[in-house]
Amino acid sequence: MRVAVLGTGPVGQAVAARLDELDHQVTVGTRDPEGAMARTDPDNFGNPPFPVWASQHSDVSIATLPEATADAELIVNATNGAGSLEALEAAGEDNLAGKVLIDIANPLDFSGGMPPSLSVSNNDSLGEQIQRRFPEARVVKTLNTMNAYLMVDPKQLAGGDHTVFISGDDTDAKNQVAGVLESLGWSNIVDLGDITTARGTEMYLPLWLRIMGATQNPMFNIKVVR
Amino acid sequence: MRVAVLGTGPVGQAVAARLDELDHQVTVGTRDPEGAMARTDPDNFGNPPFPVWASQHSDVSIATLPEATADAELIVNATNGAGSLEALEAAGEDNLAGKVLIDIANPLDFSGGMPPSLSVSNNDSLGEQIQRRFPEARVVKTLNTMNAYLMVDPKQLAGGDHTVFISGDDTDAKNQVAGVLESLGWSNIVDLGDITTARGTEMYLPLWLRIMGATQNPMFNIKVVR
Repeated sequence: MRVAVLGTGPVGQAVAARLDELDHQVTVGTRDPEGAMARTDPDNFGNPPFPVWASQHSDVSIATLPEATADAELIVNATNGAGSLEALEAAGEDNLAGKVLIDIANPLDFSGGMPPSLSVSNNDSLGEQIQRRFPEARVVKTLNTMNAYLMVDPKQLAGGDHTVFISGDDTDAKNQVAGVLESLGWSNIVDLGDITTARGTEMYLPLWLRIMGATQNPMFNIKVVR
Repeated sequence: MRVAVLGTGPVGQAVAARLDELDHQVTVGTRDPEGAMARTDPDNFGNPPFPVWASQHSDVSIATLPEATADAELIVNATNGAGSLEALEAAGEDNLAGKVLIDIANPLDFSGGMPPSLSVSNNDSLGEQIQRRFPEARVVKTLNTMNAYLMVDPKQLAGGDHTVFISGDDTDAKNQVAGVLESLGWSNIVDLGDITTARGTEMYLPLWLRIMGATQNPMFNIKVVR
C-alpha cells in the first residue's frame, strides 16, 4: 500500500519505519521537507534529529503534505494534536477525500505546564473536529492510547495481551484499519463505535500521563478485562 | 471501624453491604433518612427501592449526614457527583475534619443526554474540589473507575487481575485506604500521586462509558499491563 505518514516526530518515525518494514511504500509528509532534512539538533525528547532517522530508512520518501497525500491509499495523522487541523488543511481536502485517515494525534495542551491538559475534550474531540472539517475523509481514531513503540509492536509487552481501541463512522474503513493493526501485531482490538467515541480515548490521556508519572515507565498499556 | 457511607444509590448500597459483611460498623448517611425509608419505587436503574435493601441489611444504620459522619472513623462519599459538595457541606466541615474520606463519586453531567459528559474536568476534578473545600479532610479518590459490584468484589472478574487507582495528598490516608481495598479483594493498586491525579481517573469515565456501550456489559475493568 502507498501510505502517507504525516509528521516527523517520534510517532511519525515509529509508524513510518514499521510500515516500511512491512513492505508498504511509505512517504513521510511534512510542511517543510527541506527544513526537516536540515535539522541538526535532537528533538525535545532527546531523539536524534530527523535526518539521522531518514538516513537509516532510505526506502521512506520525504515530501510535502500535498505531495505525500496525493497518491496515498492510506494516510496516518501523526502530527502534533495542536497542529493537526492545520497540517491536514495544508495537505488539501481533495487529497484526503475518500481515503482512510488514521488519526493518532492527541490534543495535548502544554501551555499550562506539565502534565499537559487537553485543548478539546468532554463535548468534542480532535477526531471529531477532523471528521467534521474533512467530511469526505474516512477518519479512524486509533493507537492514541499508548507509547509510539508499543503502537507499532504491541507484542513486545505481555505478548500483545493488551487493548487498542478504534473509533470511526465508516465501518469499511474501520475494518481496513483493524487489518493494519493486526499486521502490526494487535489482536485485542475494541471497536468503540462512531467517531464521537474518540472523546473516550482522547480523555484517557490524562490518566495515561498520571500512570506514566507514577511508574516512570512509558512502556505500559491497558487491557480491558471482561 | 465505624464507617459512614454517604449515598443510598447502587454504589452506596454495594459499599455499605460489603463493609458490613467485613464486620465494620456501617451507617448509611443521607440527607433525608425518613424520605429514603419511605421510597416505594425502583430507582432509575430498576433496582428495588432503598427500604428493600435496608431490610436486607439490618445491621446497617440509616442516619442524617451529620449523624452518620460525626462518630465515623472512615467516610465514603458515594453520593452523585453532581450533589457531592452539597452533601458533604450538609454533613458538616467539623464532622469531616481529620478523617479519611474515600471519594468514589464521578462528576457526571447528564444534562446533554447519554452518554454523560463531565461537569468538571481537564484543569480540575471533583476530588480536588472536595479537598479544597474541606482542607482538613484526608481525601482519597479511588474505586471510581469501575462498576459498583466490581468495586467491592474485584475477584469475581479474572480473579482480581485488574487495576484500581488511588489519588490523594495524604500518604498515611492512602495507606489506610489501600488496606481497605485489600480487604475488599484488591491486589493491583496503583498510587497515582496527589489529589490532582484524580483528573486522570475521572476523565477515564468517558472511555469507561464507551467501552460499556460497545460491549453492553458493565462488568469489566482495565488492567495496567507493564
